[in-house]
Amino acid sequence: MRIQVINPNSSASMTATIAAAARAVAAPGSEIIAATARGGPVSIEGHYEEAVATIAMLEEVRRGEAAGCDAHVIACFGDPGLLAAREIARGPVLGIAEAAMHAACFIATGFSIVTTLTRTRIIAEQLVRNYGMEHACRRVRATDLAVLELEDPASDARAKIIAACERALDEDGSGAIVLGCAGMADLTAAVAQALGVPVIDGVAAAVKFAEALVGLGLGTSKRGDLAYPLAKPYRGGLAHLAPLAALPA
Amino acid sequence: MRIQVINPNSSASMTATIAAAARAVAAPGSEIIAATARGGPVSIEGHYEEAVATIAMLEEVRRGEAAGCDAHVIACFGDPGLLAAREIARGPVLGIAEAAMHAACFIATGFSIVTTLTRTRIIAEQLVRNYGMEHACRRVRATDLAVLELEDPASDARAKIIAACERALDEDGSGAIVLGCAGMADLTAAVAQALGVPVIDGVAAAVKFAEALVGLGLGTSKRGDLAYPLAKPYRGGLAHLAPLAALPA
Amino acid sequence: MRIQVINPNSSASMTATIAAAARAVAAPGSEIIAATARGGPVSIEGHYEEAVATIAMLEEVRRGEAAGCDAHVIACFGDPGLLAAREIARGPVLGIAEAAMHAACFIATGFSIVTTLTRTRIIAEQLVRNYGMEHACRRVRATDLAVLELEDPASDARAKIIAACERALDEDGSGAIVLGCAGMADLTAAVAQALGVPVIDGVAAAVKFAEALVGLGLGTSKRGDLAYPLAKPYRGGLAHLAPLAALPA
Amino acid sequence: MRIQVINPNSSASMTATIAAAARAVAAPGSEIIAATARGGPVSIEGHYEEAVATIAMLEEVRRGEAAGCDAHVIACFGDPGLLAAREIARGPVLGIAEAAMHAACFIATGFSIVTTLTRTRIIAEQLVRNYGMEHACRRVRATDLAVLELEDPASDARAKIIAACERALDEDGSGAIVLGCAGMADLTAAVAQALGVPVIDGVAAAVKFAEALVGLGLGTSKRGDLAYPLAKPYRGGLAHLAPLAALPA
Amino acid sequence: MRIQVINPNSSASMTATIAAAARAVAAPGSEIIAATARGGPVSIEGHYEEAVATIAMLEEVRRGEAAGCDAHVIACFGDPGLLAAREIARGPVLGIAEAAMHAACFIATGFSIVTTLTRTRIIAEQLVRNYGMEHACRRVRATDLAVLELEDPASDARAKIIAACERALDEDGSGAIVLGCAGMADLTAAVAQALGVPVIDGVAAAVKFAEALVGLGLGTSKRGDLAYPLAKPYRGGLAHLAPLAALPA
Amino acid sequence: MRIQVINPNSSASMTATIAAAARAVAAPGSEIIAATARGGPVSIEGHYEEAVATIAMLEEVRRGEAAGCDAHVIACFGDPGLLAAREIARGPVLGIAEAAMHAACFIATGFSIVTTLTRTRIIAEQLVRNYGMEHACRRVRATDLAVLELEDPASDARAKIIAACERALDEDGSGAIVLGCAGMADLTAAVAQALGVPVIDGVAAAVKFAEALVGLGLGTSKRGDLAYPLAKPYRGGLAHLAPLAALPA
Repeated sequence: MRIQVINPNSSASMTATIAAAARAVAAPGSEIIAATARGGPVSIEGHYEEAVATIAMLEEVRRGEAAGCDAHVIACFGDPGLLAAREIARGPVLGIAEAAMHAACFIATGFSIVTTLTRTRIIAEQLVRNYGMEHACRRVRATDLAVLELEDPASDARAKIIAACERALDEDGSGAIVLGCAGMADLTAAVAQALGVPVIDGVAAAVKFAEALVGLGLGTSKRGDLAYPLAKPYRGGLAHLAPLAALPA
Repeated sequence: MRIQVINPNSSASMTATIAAAARAVAAPGSEIIAATARGGPVSIEGHYEEAVATIAMLEEVRRGEAAGCDAHVIACFGDPGLLAAREIARGPVLGIAEAAMHAACFIATGFSIVTTLTRTRIIAEQLVRNYGMEHACRRVRATDLAVLELEDPASDARAKIIAACERALDEDGSGAIVLGCAGMADLTAAVAQALGVPVIDGVAAAVKFAEALVGLGLGTSKRGDLAYPLAKPYRGGLAHLAPLAALPA
Repeated sequence: MRIQVINPNSSASMTATIAAAARAVAAPGSEIIAATARGGPVSIEGHYEEAVATIAMLEEVRRGEAAGCDAHVIACFGDPGLLAAREIARGPVLGIAEAAMHAACFIATGFSIVTTLTRTRIIAEQLVRNYGMEHACRRVRATDLAVLELEDPASDARAKIIAACERALDEDGSGAIVLGCAGMADLTAAVAQALGVPVIDGVAAAVKFAEALVGLGLGTSKRGDLAYPLAKPYRGGLAHLAPLAALPA
Repeated sequence: MRIQVINPNSSASMTATIAAAARAVAAPGSEIIAATARGGPVSIEGHYEEAVATIAMLEEVRRGEAAGCDAHVIACFGDPGLLAAREIARGPVLGIAEAAMHAACFIATGFSIVTTLTRTRIIAEQLVRNYGMEHACRRVRATDLAVLELEDPASDARAKIIAACERALDEDGSGAIVLGCAGMADLTAAVAQALGVPVIDGVAAAVKFAEALVGLGLGTSKRGDLAYPLAKPYRGGLAHLAPLAALPA
Repeated sequence: MRIQVINPNSSASMTATIAAAARAVAAPGSEIIAATARGGPVSIEGHYEEAVATIAMLEEVRRGEAAGCDAHVIACFGDPGLLAAREIARGPVLGIAEAAMHAACFIATGFSIVTTLTRTRIIAEQLVRNYGMEHACRRVRATDLAVLELEDPASDARAKIIAACERALDEDGSGAIVLGCAGMADLTAAVAQALGVPVIDGVAAAVKFAEALVGLGLGTSKRGDLAYPLAKPYRGGLAHLAPLAALPA
Repeated sequence: MRIQVINPNSSASMTATIAAAARAVAAPGSEIIAATARGGPVSIEGHYEEAVATIAMLEEVRRGEAAGCDAHVIACFGDPGLLAAREIARGPVLGIAEAAMHAACFIATGFSIVTTLTRTRIIAEQLVRNYGMEHACRRVRATDLAVLELEDPASDARAKIIAACERALDEDGSGAIVLGCAGMADLTAAVAQALGVPVIDGVAAAVKFAEALVGLGLGTSKRGDLAYPLAKPYRGGLAHLAPLAALPA
């Protein structure tokens, strides 16, 4: 099975981190097709950046569909463009925030999310509510780390993240931690070892759930709001995004 | 005051309907600046189309900001890109679904939304939940009309809409109707007269609430997730969307 | 257009503050008709006082209707008697808590309310829930100021309020502040200047939203629970409140 | 123990029905003190009537407190003025809607409410939400009976109510019925016998729960929003409602 | 009337505390039949222990039904097996957590629960949600006391509980306290005296509400999910739990 | 990896259906260890049967743990004893209702559950609420089929189920179907083919999600309410359920 893992931001170095996390958990028969957005912001830390990155992400989904990918993972914790991507995909499409939160529900009755900036904390809180996770997510915590600082070996990112996780366990009564940024994927094992509780990276979770869904023979429902986009003209600089040719009859 | 009213789809004929609805209610000192998305789908009836249209809409917001507009209205009932638009705007930004639902709360304890297709009905239900309107919105009803059929004088759109509204009053126990498509703006008066209850068009509501907010001296909060986008590189075909130059110091 | 702004408590000095706040934002064609409750408590800081003040407020609404007012504002942050007032009004009726919270939703994804006593804090929390604002109101904060202290120039009311607002921004992650008492209306500009975020006074917000609704041709729905009261006898000392004569055919 | 049962409307005949229902279930040591509102509407079928009736009801609570009553029951299904009454009472105060819904939770996982008019149905739905009963109340059904029709032996009230209850059991999946009007109190046994499921009259439920709470030594909390009203002047025709003299030190 | 009060754990000493609390509030005509689980854990502090204790509790309910008990109280704050017990009972069955929370709603608009260990705190939070009490329960607080420590006169249990309650009043804005363990029943009066607010022991509350429901002629609904278990074979060591013979025709 | 799939009812024929469904989707390296409850009811259609079956299920979990199973699936749609099982397991434990609902969230924005009897419908609705799935589950539908009828080739079970699913698609606006009984596992493919939308069997979904979680290195959190049961005496006929010896140091 071929699973496309899309980094919606345009930083290839972060794609490498993401792809490694995906490949580390992929089943023997799974091929990870890593893709980097070919345009848009180098990191995603707000609604505007999500909106722009969504376009680049959707183009990758179209490429992945054309290439016969069986499933798609959107590897940014804001899950940008998730429902739009589902419309144009035959197979399952998973966001990493969504996947991580669902995974946490299976192994703990309460979890905390540890993310980067305050503005992404607020966005993560909106996702918690969208996904019906208020009963399970006990708190979202920011670390005041920028996404790209996570890649800087000289930063104290790891220590700050572990400190935030420890406060989560002590103060929130949580039994598991969700790491709230694709760029934290390579820290999962270290954080889990430090804390002694399950720590969930959404990239890995999304890959495994994608494998599970494909293994179940389940694709995105084509009845209702996730049906393929209707055939209609698209104008101007965005005309190439018209879905006409790409869709099944 | 200058209020930019943006039609996120690329159909100029629909912009004319929207602009007329806006101007019909604008206060003497309000100038309505109507804008049509310069690219993207000719109508918006799904998540994918919303995502593509958002880019074109955001470009119009940037133009409107540069032109000194005091407020912006996103004239599509799905409120595409609303939070992204707020990030790049100084003044208030209103979605027409949001504006219509808030207006309904002031004049009735329960309302129904009458919209076009089933897939847009599902999206409208998601907005109801996002906006905390479950206690007030008693039902969303589809009419099986496509957005562009609303413009066809030969269609039976008006009769279908009135019939759906009547069922809403009878079966839902609603006291007001929200018309769930910008393309219905010119039907508001006729539907209200037929029903004898308040009927709300989101375009008009958004314009009046925009005037109200500007009159209160209120703009979009620049603290938290609606702060201006961070300065960072944007790559590829989307590089022109980088907000760097456009933002206040 | 004539907008009646009713101070439900019987303190004329507070009415002056409220009327000034209303007139400061009213559009050129709007006439503000300020009214003070002719009976009941001098300030409203609890459910019992709200219940008594409601009677006096309803009598003012009846006077306002008889005088041809186009809309009514209930200028007490508990929104006492709001639904009852709507039953006897043709035009829109707005509570200032409701108006302020709706305004906040248009310009921020989260807000805090700063109010007076702990008991009014609890009542404000109940309003937040009634209005479906749990997703947007991040916290209600009390200042331990009595309502009438706000009028005392020797009190440190302003400093206490600004301090509470600053804690709200720091700890709650809010992007805007709602001032939770009609008596704070004259502090709005100063608090906004001190904080650098939008600060919302419900009196001003309600006036502008009333103008907006009247401008849209929208009045209170007369279908359902807000229909005019049924014709029936009222006995005893409250007989003069029987709505019989006042109602449209 | 002395339990004051207050009919908030001014119809003595309905008070007789209510008092009989209360006395039929009262424990040997319980004295039922029935009181009729000395002013206000003869029946309560809307927000406005509730607001007016609240004043008369509160006066009865004050009389009951002065007479040493240990608990108070507000015998109108809208629970008008419940929190205001609690502020001025030492002992427990129960609304009959509240009592009936809580009783239903103990004996069924889902219940339906059968009430009178559509406008009272909407108000009952608001109570369901206020009391956190959405998970248990599966539906509120109107019978299109006016409150005072219930007293008319020539009406087909009983048959209409039983028919609505039967639909509730069939269509709503409910295990119990709550009768949504104090005026239905004398029909409880007949309806229960016809249906074969528990049928709850709020008057009886409130009396028994009042006995239970007094037996537990529990009165209304005087900390927070239910503390006695603050001492302050009341003006005009409502001055006699000032709580000053009546309150404990 | 005969009310069976079942201690689901197998500690007879705790049953004595529970029975004393029940008898202290029982009405003159009420006979308290105290029962101790004949098997299972000596205290209940987790989901697993609840599951095992449920079996022993259900056997006592069957004995109580056979002995003609009119109602049953499950005297463990987790309300283990509540719905299962209701299926096999004719009369009402009350959990003490449920009863305490409902009692709190009648006398305060907000309450806090003070319980034993952190793991029982989490379980109590789940009950709060199950019972629709999120609007009323402002916080659940743990004291880090084990259930059986409550019986040790040398422990500082009482002081720790009072300290937790005082924090609840100061920080949570609650008007009443629910004691979150059957083993705290004998501390109720002392805690209430120390705090000056209503303090609710679920054992006493459940007994009084059971009396109330029986007095109303209400038993568990036998329509829907609480109907008697279906007649079918039970195998193996659990065959004696088959409900066949015990059920009414 | 070894995945234990436990049929909590004592019908070996149903275990065969469940095991076949599990093995049909298991990955090459996964061994399915099917277990039948060694006691208790032959089918589970109510709270009481769930409580009894939980004991037998927990004993199988203990056997599975002792045998080194990496994960456990509770193959009954009521998810009986799920949290209790998690306490005594090192690896993940999945309920099939939970797994099916989570799977549905990944591929549709709304789903319907089609189950057996009305009483199991009510229980499924309770699960929907417990799992925070109200936003996604649009309706639970009963078919009036008993669990064991599903095994009878002469019954019209398949036709009834497909008919209920078709109504779900038409009336509920759902994009996917969840089959609400382990005994329906062998009908999944046929129903999916008839409907043309994704149809989810919880047994298969739970097996694949168990594989995913084990592949992620995630087990049940041992911090908080899912920690191993505390060491304490168990008395009477249930003494063998004491977890003392079985737990890790």
